[in-house]
Amino acid sequence: MSARVLIVDDLFPNVKLLETKLGLEYFDTLAAMNGPDAIAICEKGLCDLVLLDVMMPGMDGFEVCRHLKGNPVTAHIPVVMVTALDQPSDRLKGLDAGADDFLTKPVDDTALFTRVRSLVRLKAVTDELRQRALASRAYGIGDPLATAAAESGLDANILIVEDRPGAAERMATALLQHHRITVETNPIAAMQLAAETEFDLALISLDLDGHDGLRLCSQLRSLDRTRGMPLIMIAEAHDRARITRGLDFGVHDYLMRPLDRNELLARTRTQVRRKRYSDVLRGAMQASLQMAVTDGLTGLHNRRYLDSHLGALFAEEGVRGRALATLILDIDRFKSINDTFGHEAGDEVLRAFADRVRQHTRPIDIVARYGGEEIVVILPDTGLTEARAIAERIRERIEATPFPVLRQTRALTVTVSIGVAVRGAHDGSPGDMLRRADEGLYEAKATGRNRVVAQAA
Amino acid sequence: MSARVLIVDDLFPNVKLLETKLGLEYFDTLAAMNGPDAIAICEKGLCDLVLLDVMMPGMDGFEVCRHLKGNPVTAHIPVVMVTALDQPSDRLKGLDAGADDFLTKPVDDTALFTRVRSLVRLKAVTDELRQRALASRAYGIGDPLATAAAESGLDANILIVEDRPGAAERMATALLQHHRITVETNPIAAMQLAAETEFDLALISLDLDGHDGLRLCSQLRSLDRTRGMPLIMIAEAHDRARITRGLDFGVHDYLMRPLDRNELLARTRTQVRRKRYSDVLRGAMQASLQMAVTDGLTGLHNRRYLDSHLGALFAEEGVRGRALATLILDIDRFKSINDTFGHEAGDEVLRAFADRVRQHTRPIDIVARYGGEEIVVILPDTGLTEARAIAERIRERIEATPFPVLRQTRALTVTVSIGVAVRGAHDGSPGDMLRRADEGLYEAKATGRNRVVAQAA
Repeated sequence: MSARVLIVDDLFPNVKLLETKLGLEYFDTLAAMNGPDAIAICEKGLCDLVLLDVMMPGMDGFEVCRHLKGNPVTAHIPVVMVTALDQPSDRLKGLDAGADDFLTKPVDDTALFTRVRSLVRLKAVTDELRQRALASRAYGIGDPLATAAAESGLDANILIVEDRPGAAERMATALLQHHRITVETNPIAAMQLAAETEFDLALISLDLDGHDGLRLCSQLRSLDRTRGMPLIMIAEAHDRARITRGLDFGVHDYLMRPLDRNELLARTRTQVRRKRYSDVLRGAMQASLQMAVTDGLTGLHNRRYLDSHLGALFAEEGVRGRALATLILDIDRFKSINDTFGHEAGDEVLRAFADRVRQHTRPIDIVARYGGEEIVVILPDTGLTEARAIAERIRERIEATPFPVLRQTRALTVTVSIGVAVRGAHDGSPGDMLRRADEGLYEAKATGRNRVVAQAA
Repeated sequence: MSARVLIVDDLFPNVKLLETKLGLEYFDTLAAMNGPDAIAICEKGLCDLVLLDVMMPGMDGFEVCRHLKGNPVTAHIPVVMVTALDQPSDRLKGLDAGADDFLTKPVDDTALFTRVRSLVRLKAVTDELRQRALASRAYGIGDPLATAAAESGLDANILIVEDRPGAAERMATALLQHHRITVETNPIAAMQLAAETEFDLALISLDLDGHDGLRLCSQLRSLDRTRGMPLIMIAEAHDRARITRGLDFGVHDYLMRPLDRNELLARTRTQVRRKRYSDVLRGAMQASLQMAVTDGLTGLHNRRYLDSHLGALFAEEGVRGRALATLILDIDRFKSINDTFGHEAGDEVLRAFADRVRQHTRPIDIVARYGGEEIVVILPDTGLTEARAIAERIRERIEATPFPVLRQTRALTVTVSIGVAVRGAHDGSPGDMLRRADEGLYEAKATGRNRVVAQAA
């Protein structure tokens, strides 16, 4: 994946050097000579990755990184810190600030390109999710990006695949402070476990006894069930080639032995945050899809859902030669409830009405809010006699217990009229059945309300 | 990106050879010895890419490919055909069947890995979109996958960047049969053009005079505006290294000079289809987001939208010291329309009611269906006198022209009562303003209907 890389350094020769290296590899580059300029470029969405010098006058790299990672607008942009000092304390400070990785000057070309490519590729997938989240924010359906960026990265469910007892124990001890830990020594068992359990992250030793840990990584990246789980490789200095290969096929990060406890904690946290960022965006997307077919007030399906599912259900049950019934329920004199007690009370009655109908229907039934105070229930595999009995039971239960409204200060007796119909042999579409149920409802209203009228086909 | 590669070949040694090669590069492999088995594996979603032998007894590779590409369930899986014969006619037959690329036996390792990686990476981004589309289908919001897979790949808007007059003309002539063509010789002008125009594809010569065409490719892949446009490189035999690099950073395909006219047409079509596949899925996603805040019957915003936007608008206009007005409109005796003429006529009235209200409001106003026959209009920067005048105009226009219903066989005179209120200095939330508008509406109904009543704050 090509990408726009922002180089942030207060020294012009350093900028130039990185520009040349990245340009030869066909990356586009931008430069900023100080923190505020870098932040402005990121906020405008002009870059895909930041190479950030630590030591700058004014705002230093740590501060810039914290700023970028704390802002929902820029939190998704990968940040790689570049430092002259290979000090664990500096690395740690950067990782704590939210940096995705560290490079030490003089920058090694292979390390630079591998890391930049890997981060840019991971970002490309998240970007697709982000675009949808931005759209959902524009439509006013919550702000999943803010929620996603605020994720702490703690209390995760972590799998460690490591067969050296001492190393596994040290990792587990360090991580247990903030996370739940499972240690597995056998890669085949680990694979099964990962497919069955919802882990937030796996730490995998590349040097398992008699097994290439990188193969396990590749299998975990291939399987649908585990593809979204971040992986961190635990490697030795001689594993450089396999590290590059792993990053290339989608492993998220690595740690070198001997493990630095704090670096382990920091990198773990970064990966857990990354995963949860995507999870939150996916969840929000799913929720807004659900909204499209859900009535906001009652939580029932809406008419759009009913219309799109009823046709298929009608045809399907017809083919199988099974009965299909419809109830149309309408609250009696609902308008006077609104007029006398206000809209708020009217809404409370509608919600409670929906709940009671739901309690007397099965999961396979479709229960949809059809209009203002009307609910339609579609009952698969149900004949007229049974449908009438169900309708009668609902009618009774609604009348039997008054509806509490206005924060329980009042209780209103509510009744409902119900029209019932079943699919007839000559019905061409669900509309015919609905029309008969509607006629039943009309007759129920006309003959005194609070009653069930079934129309034969 | 690691991936599950399905190897389809009727000869066991060929399967074994590819399995070994791919395994060493950490790909997971599956094997099928015939077409039907291969199709079954793909339909179960068990693989990310297919390496498909052409010559097999029974169902040959072309037929398998056509089958996979014609089925919405499998159309997104990249197919690379593997053949012993380097015959243009065979290549073409495969490309026409929808194959994404061709490899010739004996398979060159670099070509194999580069291509597999590139296709798998492109698929990873589309997969994210596909997951959302599957969810939207599960909720009954259309079936974007079927629409997307049915795309023809013709009538595209194509940019050719080529400074050899003869070559440019030959390409343009071949493509003009099915597409619209723009030829640009200067890479800088091409970059600008691509950023301003909605192209479906760009064909880019790697050997532009004094310019590396691959740099243009990389810039086009980096810019947000052009990132989604597929790129095909036009290369010479000596360009192998740059082709690999290009595929690695996200260029979709390449053609070798001398160009084969039919191969040009086939590869162009495949890329256009790929782009439109993603476009359809993105569009469907956008549409279902919009559905979540739209009333299905009238096309107005729904209550969910009103609730989520009114709070922000209320606060914002308050900070700026500007007025904010609310109308609540309710059709008079709507229930009797439904009871007398049926639900269908009632729905027609509601739709026409919504249209008339929309015609008398501005794009900055919020117009939302609030309940059964109620519409709420929020008017930013509008005082009580003006709001009352707007309400009066809407009331008049509704009364003035009868509403045609039941396929224009009837025309009903409809009237509306309207409550009007503005934000008061002591209002703590939009609820206070809405309540006053509701009181106005109640008074309008109580004093004879078909009137506007404004409540001072």
